[in-house]
Amino acid sequence: MGMVGGGRGAFIGAVHRMAAAIDGQIELVCGAFSSSPEKSKLSGADLYLPPDRCYGTFSEMFEKEAALPEGERMDFVSIVTPNHMHYPPAKEALEHGFHVVCDKPLSFSMEQARDLVVQVDESGLLFALTHNYTGYPMVKQAKAMIRNGKLGEIRRVMVEYPQGWLSTNLEESDNQQASWRTDPSKSGVAGAMGDIGTHAENLAEYITGLQIKELCADLNTFVPGRRLDDDGSILLRFDNGARGVLTASQVAAGEENNLRIRVYGTLGGFDWSQQEPNTLLVRWLDRPAELMRAGVGSMDPAAEAAMRIPAGHPEGYLEAFANIYKNVAYCIQARLAGEKPDPIYEDFPSVRDGLRGMQFIEKVVQSGKQGAAWVKL
Amino acid sequence: MGMVGGGRGAFIGAVHRMAAAIDGQIELVCGAFSSSPEKSKLSGADLYLPPDRCYGTFSEMFEKEAALPEGERMDFVSIVTPNHMHYPPAKEALEHGFHVVCDKPLSFSMEQARDLVVQVDESGLLFALTHNYTGYPMVKQAKAMIRNGKLGEIRRVMVEYPQGWLSTNLEESDNQQASWRTDPSKSGVAGAMGDIGTHAENLAEYITGLQIKELCADLNTFVPGRRLDDDGSILLRFDNGARGVLTASQVAAGEENNLRIRVYGTLGGFDWSQQEPNTLLVRWLDRPAELMRAGVGSMDPAAEAAMRIPAGHPEGYLEAFANIYKNVAYCIQARLAGEKPDPIYEDFPSVRDGLRGMQFIEKVVQSGKQGAAWVKL
Amino acid sequence: MGMVGGGRGAFIGAVHRMAAAIDGQIELVCGAFSSSPEKSKLSGADLYLPPDRCYGTFSEMFEKEAALPEGERMDFVSIVTPNHMHYPPAKEALEHGFHVVCDKPLSFSMEQARDLVVQVDESGLLFALTHNYTGYPMVKQAKAMIRNGKLGEIRRVMVEYPQGWLSTNLEESDNQQASWRTDPSKSGVAGAMGDIGTHAENLAEYITGLQIKELCADLNTFVPGRRLDDDGSILLRFDNGARGVLTASQVAAGEENNLRIRVYGTLGGFDWSQQEPNTLLVRWLDRPAELMRAGVGSMDPAAEAAMRIPAGHPEGYLEAFANIYKNVAYCIQARLAGEKPDPIYEDFPSVRDGLRGMQFIEKVVQSGKQGAAWVKL
Amino acid sequence: MGMVGGGRGAFIGAVHRMAAAIDGQIELVCGAFSSSPEKSKLSGADLYLPPDRCYGTFSEMFEKEAALPEGERMDFVSIVTPNHMHYPPAKEALEHGFHVVCDKPLSFSMEQARDLVVQVDESGLLFALTHNYTGYPMVKQAKAMIRNGKLGEIRRVMVEYPQGWLSTNLEESDNQQASWRTDPSKSGVAGAMGDIGTHAENLAEYITGLQIKELCADLNTFVPGRRLDDDGSILLRFDNGARGVLTASQVAAGEENNLRIRVYGTLGGFDWSQQEPNTLLVRWLDRPAELMRAGVGSMDPAAEAAMRIPAGHPEGYLEAFANIYKNVAYCIQARLAGEKPDPIYEDFPSVRDGLRGMQFIEKVVQSGKQGAAWVKL
Repeated sequence: MGMVGGGRGAFIGAVHRMAAAIDGQIELVCGAFSSSPEKSKLSGADLYLPPDRCYGTFSEMFEKEAALPEGERMDFVSIVTPNHMHYPPAKEALEHGFHVVCDKPLSFSMEQARDLVVQVDESGLLFALTHNYTGYPMVKQAKAMIRNGKLGEIRRVMVEYPQGWLSTNLEESDNQQASWRTDPSKSGVAGAMGDIGTHAENLAEYITGLQIKELCADLNTFVPGRRLDDDGSILLRFDNGARGVLTASQVAAGEENNLRIRVYGTLGGFDWSQQEPNTLLVRWLDRPAELMRAGVGSMDPAAEAAMRIPAGHPEGYLEAFANIYKNVAYCIQARLAGEKPDPIYEDFPSVRDGLRGMQFIEKVVQSGKQGAAWVKL
Repeated sequence: MGMVGGGRGAFIGAVHRMAAAIDGQIELVCGAFSSSPEKSKLSGADLYLPPDRCYGTFSEMFEKEAALPEGERMDFVSIVTPNHMHYPPAKEALEHGFHVVCDKPLSFSMEQARDLVVQVDESGLLFALTHNYTGYPMVKQAKAMIRNGKLGEIRRVMVEYPQGWLSTNLEESDNQQASWRTDPSKSGVAGAMGDIGTHAENLAEYITGLQIKELCADLNTFVPGRRLDDDGSILLRFDNGARGVLTASQVAAGEENNLRIRVYGTLGGFDWSQQEPNTLLVRWLDRPAELMRAGVGSMDPAAEAAMRIPAGHPEGYLEAFANIYKNVAYCIQARLAGEKPDPIYEDFPSVRDGLRGMQFIEKVVQSGKQGAAWVKL
Repeated sequence: MGMVGGGRGAFIGAVHRMAAAIDGQIELVCGAFSSSPEKSKLSGADLYLPPDRCYGTFSEMFEKEAALPEGERMDFVSIVTPNHMHYPPAKEALEHGFHVVCDKPLSFSMEQARDLVVQVDESGLLFALTHNYTGYPMVKQAKAMIRNGKLGEIRRVMVEYPQGWLSTNLEESDNQQASWRTDPSKSGVAGAMGDIGTHAENLAEYITGLQIKELCADLNTFVPGRRLDDDGSILLRFDNGARGVLTASQVAAGEENNLRIRVYGTLGGFDWSQQEPNTLLVRWLDRPAELMRAGVGSMDPAAEAAMRIPAGHPEGYLEAFANIYKNVAYCIQARLAGEKPDPIYEDFPSVRDGLRGMQFIEKVVQSGKQGAAWVKL
Repeated sequence: MGMVGGGRGAFIGAVHRMAAAIDGQIELVCGAFSSSPEKSKLSGADLYLPPDRCYGTFSEMFEKEAALPEGERMDFVSIVTPNHMHYPPAKEALEHGFHVVCDKPLSFSMEQARDLVVQVDESGLLFALTHNYTGYPMVKQAKAMIRNGKLGEIRRVMVEYPQGWLSTNLEESDNQQASWRTDPSKSGVAGAMGDIGTHAENLAEYITGLQIKELCADLNTFVPGRRLDDDGSILLRFDNGARGVLTASQVAAGEENNLRIRVYGTLGGFDWSQQEPNTLLVRWLDRPAELMRAGVGSMDPAAEAAMRIPAGHPEGYLEAFANIYKNVAYCIQARLAGEKPDPIYEDFPSVRDGLRGMQFIEKVVQSGKQGAAWVKL
C-alpha cells in the first residue's frame, strides 16, 4: 500500500494506517504524505519507510512505483487528503493502474464524481470508499436480517449523527480539522451534511437496501461567521414507500460521535449505535426484544467474517475500518492469484456509493437553499 | 371529585382514579361513568360509591351535584371520555361552576377549543389538561435548567414518541382503544398526531419554554384501510431560531411508549426518556456528562415538589400523572381557604396549552395534506 | 385500615398510605400515629381523619376499634414503626382479632419472631410483611420462569443492595431515619444487614424458591463511632447446591437504592435491578439475550396481576409496595365474603418469611462475630 | 518480535499479533509457532514470514536469532502458549538476552514463577505479562483518580468476571481452548480462577493500588467430570482495611466476558465494565453521577496516552491489548537509543505482577480445599 496524505499533524491518515495494519495482510511501502515534499519525507521516516519510497508528490509516486517490478511496487493507494484533494490523486492512480482506497466523500464536485465512476468502470480496477461505519459486524448483521425479511416490509428509518465539537467557532483557532471542514474551497458545498450526513445516508441505504428518492432538508448554520451548514434535519421518502428522518449536527453540544440508526418494519425494528457497536437491539411486534451481541448465537456469514475475536471482547472503530481494508486486500490477493474473490469480501463501499453520496449532498443543499423544499434524488 | 367516563372496560379512567387517589388529597365522590346509565351505575358500584351518586348522565350529575350543599358536593370534575366527548361535559361543568380536569387533546375541533378558553377565562374556574408527561420530576428539572440558562441558547430540539401497538389493523378486532382512536368521528382530524403527537408538542414547548412557529409535516398512514395518520415526522422551527424534529408513530413495531426528548443548547444538552423517567442525562460541552437522578443532589424546587420518596425508589407514570391532580387539589384547597396557591402548585397544563395543542393538530394536518409544505403556527 | 406509627416526620408510614390508597380497595379509617398522643392526633388530622379515630396509643385503638360494629371498625392494621416497636402492636392486634400488615424486619428479637409465628398460626389471621421488592411484576415473572424450569438447575445467585446514604455519621446530625437505624436498642443486632440485607435475602429466596443453608459473613463498620454494621459481604450455599454472594452496604458512596439480583442456571441467567424495575434481562446459553419488559408479550399470570397499566408506562416502588396491600385486601375481602381467595392474591411475604429473615440476621451476626466463619442456617 | 506458540488453530496468538501490529512500532520477524516443527513452518508461511525465520523449536529460534547481527535479530519474544509452556521458553529467552512478553498466568507453578522473577532481576531485561485489561484508557483513568484521592479512602471493591462458555462439558468435544484450560497438567492447579480470576485480581490491585492480604474462597466445580474449578466467590480483605468480593465463573450461562469492577471510597465510587470499556461511571456522595467517556474533557496523561482516536470512536479489546505492546516497544526503543523511557510507557504488568497472580492462585486453591477458610496472602 502507498498513501497520499496523512503526514504529521493529520488525523485520518493514522486511522487508515492502523486499520490497514491490524490484520497483517497489508504493508505500507511508500507514500506522498504531504503537499510539502519535505514534510512528506519526514512523515515517511516516522513510519520507518526507506527514504526512496517517501515521495515529494503523488504524481512522482505513481510514476516511480508504476516503474517498479511487480511484487515490489505498491499494490494499491490509499488517499486520505481533505475532500478537494481526493480527485486528483484518485484519477492519476487509476491512470497508472493502481487500485484505490479513498476517504469519503468521493470528491469535491459532482463532475469529479461522475468522471471517477467512468474511469473506474473503464479501468476495471478496484475502488473502495471508506464509509467505515458499514464495516461493523452488527451493521452487517442488521443488513442481513432486513434482506432476509426478518423485519418485514420497512416503514420507517431514523438515522442521526450528532456531534458537538463544532459548537463554537473552533475554525478560528488553529484547529486544522475544523479549519478545512468549514472551508467551502476544501470541503465542498456542504459542511456537516458532507462530513457526517453522507455517512448517515450511506449507512441508511446500506442497511436497508432501500434508496432515498425524495427529501426535504432544513439546513442550518448556528455558529456565527461559519460558511457552511453545521446542522440539519431531513425528511426522507424511500423508494418502497418507507419514510424517514436524517439528522446531522456538529453543534449538538456534548455529543461525541453518536451515529445511530433505527429501522422499523411490519414485524419488528432495530436500534444500533456506533458508540456501543457490538450490540444490536431488536424489537419484535409480539415478544420480548432481543439484545443481539457480536459473536453470540448464530450470525450472518458477512457479520461473522467481520469479527476477529470471540463474543465479549469489544471490537471498535478501528476494527470496523479495518474490515474495509481487509476485504480490499483479499480481493486484490484473489486478482493477483487470478481467482474470483469470495463474494463475502466484495462487501465494501464502491465508487458508485460515492457518487450516490455526492448526489445526496447536491440535493440536500438544493433543498436547503429553497427553504427546505422537497426535491427528488 | 366526580368523573365523566371511565366506566367498565375503559382504560384511562382507571389511571385518573389511581392518580387522584395516591396522595390522599382527593376522594372520588360521584360519577357519570358511561353513556349507558346502567353501566354507569354498575361501574360506580365497583368503585364503592353510593348508588345516589352514580349518575345516568353527566348533565344529571352536574345539576344534582350543584344542588348539594358546599362541602358535600364534588369540588371538581374529571373528564376521561374519548376526544369527541370532552367538550360537552367540560362546557356544562364550567357552566355549573365546577373546576375541570380533562384528558387530552382538549377537544374534537378548534371551535370547541376556542370556546372553552373563553369559558374558562370568563368563569375564573380552574381547568387542567392531563398532558401528564409534564408531571415527571426530571421533566420539571430539565425545564428549570433551561429556564436558568444552564444549557445556554437552545439550538436543537428532538422529540419523538414511537409506539408499535397499531402496527396491524387492530381496530378491526374488537379493541375498544384502537377503535375510537382510529375513527375520525371520535378522534378528530388526526390519529397518531392527535393522540401522541400532541403530547410530544406539549412536552417540547413545556420543557424549552419556546414556541413552535413553523412546521413541515410528512404524515403517513401505513396500515391499509386505516382512516387517520398512524405515523409522521415534522420539521420544526421555534420562535428563537432553534430547529427541531418531532416524530410520532403508532406503527413503530416493538416500541412500547417511548417518548423521548433531547434538547441541545450552546452549553450542553440533555436527554430524557419516559420509560426510564427518573434519570436525566445531561451532556456538557467540555466536561463529562452527568446522570442526574431524581432525588440526588440539589434539585429545583418544582422537581423536588414532584417527588414522594427518596432517590433510588423509582416513581413512574402514575406518580407523574398524580402530580397534576395533586397540584390541582392544592390550588382548589387554597381557593376554598380564600388563599393564593403556592405558585409551585400552579404548574399543570392549562386550557391554553390545550388550545395550542389543537392548533398544532390543525396545522400538522394542513401541512400533511399539502404534501408536507411549510405552514406557520 | 388502621395504622400504628407513621406520624409527622416519619418516612415509611407515608409510603404505606400511598401504597394502600392507590388501588381504591383500602381506606385509612383510624390510627395511632405516634408514641405521643398529641402528635398522633395532629397527624391524623393531617390525613383528614375524624378526631375520634385518632388514638393516643395503639392499645387504645385496638380496644376501641374492636368494640365497633363490623363494617365500621378497621379490617386490619398496618404497623410502620421502627423495628423494636413491631412486636408489641402486632401481638396486641392479633389478640384483638385484627389482620396485620407489618414493616420488616419482623421483630427486634428471635423470641418475638417465634412468638408471632405461633400467634398467627393459632389465630388464623392474615399476616403480611412488607418485603415490598417481591411486589414488582418482573420479580414475579422471574420467579415464575425459574419455577417453570426456564433457567434449568440454578447454580449461582448474586444479590446486592448498595446504598450510600450512611457514608458519613449522619446519625450524629438530627436525621431521624439514620438515628434509629444505627441504634442497637431500636434496630436490633444488625444494622445494614437487618435494614437492607434481609430484603436481599428475602428476594433471593423468593425468586429462586431455594433456601440458604450455610453462610459466611464478613461484616464491617466503616464509619467511626457507628455501633452496628454498615456493610458486609456474605458467601451463600443453597439447599440445592447453588452458590452465591449477598452484599449489602450503606456506605457505598453515591449509590441510591441499587438492589439487584442475578441468577444463573444451566440454561440461562437473568439480571434484575430495582432502580429500573420494568426490565428483566434474560441471557440464554446459545442465543441472544432477551429484554423482557413488563407488559410485553406473554407474561406469567402472577406478574400480569401485579401490573396496572400497559407496557411502556413505568410502574415503580409505590406500585410494587401497593401489590402487597392489594393482595392482602383481596384476601380479606374473600374472607369477609366467606370465600377462598384466588391463590394469585395469596402472594405476599408471610410471618414465616419474617421468621426466616430474623434467623438470617442472627446467623449473619454470629458468623461475623466469629471472624466470618461458616455457619448453618 | 519473535513468537512462541500461536500457530494454526490457536486463539490468543492471533490476538497478540494484531495487538502488536496496530501501532506500526513492532514487526513480526520470526517464530516457533508450534510444538510440531512442520506446523510451525506452515503457520509462519501464513504470516508471510521467510522460511528461514520459521523455526522448528523455540530453542532453535533463540539460538539462531541470538546469533544474528543486532538490528536484524528479533528484539523480543512473545510467548503465547498454554500455561504449562510459559516457563521453558521464557527462561530460555532471558538466558539468550531477549526481552519477553508473556501471556498470563505467569507460569504453571509457584517455583517457576519465583525463578522467573530472579532471572528477570538478574538479567535486567524487560518482562511484560499480558494482563491486558489494565490497558484500557478508562482503567488507567480510574487508577489515576484513586491515586489522586478523588474517591477518598477506599472501603469496598467488587470485581467480577462471569463467562458462560464452559456451562457444559465442552472439553469433551474437540474444543482446543476448553480442553487445555480444564486439564490440570496444562492449566495448573486452578481452572476459572487461574484463567480469569487472576485477571480480576490483577485489575483490582492495579486500579486501587491496594493489596489483598487475606481471602476466603468458595470454589466450585459445577460441570460433572470437570477436573478444575469452573466457578468461585472470594471474600477479600485489603491492606488498608477495605473489603471486597471477587467472583469468577465460566458457568454463568449466557455471559460473554463480563469483567466488571466497582470501587467505593469515602467520597464516591466508580463502575467500569469491560464490555463497554470507553465509559467510566463515577458516582459521588452529594452530586450527580458522571459518565466519564474516553476522550471527553480532561483525562489523566496515562489514560490519554492509551487512546488513539478522538472521543466517540470506540476502542476495544485489541487496542487495550496493544497498549501493552506499544509501551513495551517504546521502552525497548528507549533502551536501544540508550535513553531512559518516559515513565508513562513503563506502565505494563511485570513479572512481579505475575508472581502475585501465582500466589493468589495458590492461596485461593488452598482456601477452597479447606472448605473456604480464611488464608493470608
